[in-house]
Amino acid sequence: MSLRLDVDLGERGYPILIGPDLLGDPAVLGPVVTARDVLVVTNEVVGPLYLERVRAGLAGRRVHALALPDGEVHKTLATVGRIFDAMVAARLNRDACVAALGGGVVGDMAGFAAACYQRGVDCVQLPTSLLAQVDSSIGGKTGVNHSAGKNLIGAFHQPVAVVADTATLATLPRREFRAGLAEVIKHALIADLGFLDWLDNHVEALLALEAGALAFAVQRSCEIKSRLVVADERERGPRALLNFGHTFGHAIETATGYADWLHGEAVAVGMVLAAGLSGRQGWLARADVERVKDLLRRAGLPVAAPGIGAERALELMGMDKKVLAGRIRLVLLTRLGEAVLTAEYPAEALSATLREHFGPGAA
Amino acid sequence: MSLRLDVDLGERGYPILIGPDLLGDPAVLGPVVTARDVLVVTNEVVGPLYLERVRAGLAGRRVHALALPDGEVHKTLATVGRIFDAMVAARLNRDACVAALGGGVVGDMAGFAAACYQRGVDCVQLPTSLLAQVDSSIGGKTGVNHSAGKNLIGAFHQPVAVVADTATLATLPRREFRAGLAEVIKHALIADLGFLDWLDNHVEALLALEAGALAFAVQRSCEIKSRLVVADERERGPRALLNFGHTFGHAIETATGYADWLHGEAVAVGMVLAAGLSGRQGWLARADVERVKDLLRRAGLPVAAPGIGAERALELMGMDKKVLAGRIRLVLLTRLGEAVLTAEYPAEALSATLREHFGPGAA
Repeated sequence: MSLRLDVDLGERGYPILIGPDLLGDPAVLGPVVTARDVLVVTNEVVGPLYLERVRAGLAGRRVHALALPDGEVHKTLATVGRIFDAMVAARLNRDACVAALGGGVVGDMAGFAAACYQRGVDCVQLPTSLLAQVDSSIGGKTGVNHSAGKNLIGAFHQPVAVVADTATLATLPRREFRAGLAEVIKHALIADLGFLDWLDNHVEALLALEAGALAFAVQRSCEIKSRLVVADERERGPRALLNFGHTFGHAIETATGYADWLHGEAVAVGMVLAAGLSGRQGWLARADVERVKDLLRRAGLPVAAPGIGAERALELMGMDKKVLAGRIRLVLLTRLGEAVLTAEYPAEALSATLREHFGPGAA
Repeated sequence: MSLRLDVDLGERGYPILIGPDLLGDPAVLGPVVTARDVLVVTNEVVGPLYLERVRAGLAGRRVHALALPDGEVHKTLATVGRIFDAMVAARLNRDACVAALGGGVVGDMAGFAAACYQRGVDCVQLPTSLLAQVDSSIGGKTGVNHSAGKNLIGAFHQPVAVVADTATLATLPRREFRAGLAEVIKHALIADLGFLDWLDNHVEALLALEAGALAFAVQRSCEIKSRLVVADERERGPRALLNFGHTFGHAIETATGYADWLHGEAVAVGMVLAAGLSGRQGWLARADVERVKDLLRRAGLPVAAPGIGAERALELMGMDKKVLAGRIRLVLLTRLGEAVLTAEYPAEALSATLREHFGPGAA
């Protein structure tokens, strides 16, 4: 049994299918992959677990496969070059389809390769991590990192479908599962106080992989994200709210070379900072800020920033792509469950927040 | 004095400005480049000639510059990586603009970098070659080559303006000028018999860089190309007619590693083959085919293919991106001044054409 949501983007619209054991089912993959040639892009960890299942799901298609090395450090233009090579070797034409089987890194790179190969071929997202299922596989953002910053190079390219097989979460490393929970919590914080209440009551059930709780959390997250994507496909307005915690988080990831911190972990700490700054604005009560921190802690996520110094953090935020004409706009919470993108905060409040969390260093 | 055409693509629409001595004029560049930060991407040949002029035209902006090595062999993903590095070093944000100062290679790469940097920033095209002025700078096709084929990797990204300074054609190497004429002739062949008649009468004037003739030829070409782009931005229909001669031409360029043949030269020979196949279809009279060849010859362009063999040529055409589901669709002339994209020709007629021009080899 699977649940279906529709991302209503007109001719670029697509379905999100959510449920257990979807990947091996030709009745699921068949209707959404119309191409004769499919290149499954996966990685060396996920491929051995699920590639054969996907081959079964794609019965009747000519299935090619490429397994990339695992990890965010490999999310580079050079690795995308390997995908292009595989597409050429498989003699894919404009009617072909790329299937991204894996987490956010695989999805971002495979999606970017699909966006650029012959100036655009179909891509179906088959996310196997919680982060990818609730966040990165939806909305068409694709790309790679540059040593100067995350996702600096990329394209908007909507998938033709997202198939989130929740059974795959059982094989996800626990640490990555927790990192995915950070984005689930983010969705609640920026858009849905009721969902935040639900998370307060069910975070342990999620950590125990309780099937019903999992399905609800994925579904609710996809709904919130889809709604913001539909309102603002190219991220000129409301979609930017999804970057809550991300500007601070990107600074952490960039400072540490993307190696030590998982994206969701950096976002978790980033949300603590963003909530803190929202508190300094007088928008969140101290108890609300503590509630955010507590929930993240209960989800097994870090809430303390690395001691990179406030100055370095600010510099790294300055290179972040959400900077407009040199002015740092941030997503802050006006209250729990409601967010705003704003540059209207005292510079001193930002500096104080950075110093509190990243340690001294004039900023 | 400049002429203005408008490419009517709604919110992605833009002006094409044509005339002598436009690059150094702030009254021309000022209104079309609104960004505070501009990265001028040029090459080591064009930069020394025109970069300072463009700096003058961009008075009041923060102008950064990057000179790439010259030539089609450098049109690679790795070179685009250098543009990304320069964009990062200049700390460009989403409001920045890339200015492509040079020929088609610079324009394609700078446009692709603009398409991908932070998932899309503005690009203004400042074409200095005839080919770029009449063809590649218009229509938003950007990209790089792969060893397996030309322009296999890229994006659709419309510029915010095209400024074609016809005075720059005086410094263009004669061979490149002639290669540009191939695309001018192509526009006449696929869409405008009257223009073809005009070219028959003015090809020597164009080769003598006679200002009035030049302006008319650039203008008429831009009109034809713009009309087809507007009718079909993503090349699913009529725009493909602009590929007349290109499928055969790409085979030549790929077989020779992009080094020996200029794009326009390969297209010239490709048009001879396409006209020949149109003749075998009974659509063009023998005299029409000869007329095409004669005009190309008078423009100083090659009309004989390299002896790579028919089989290899077909194989290289099979990898060409205009292949649909394994079937080779080609642009043929139904009569002079009118083209069609079709797979409805006898396979034997294609084989015979390939053998006639590329030499034996079973195909």
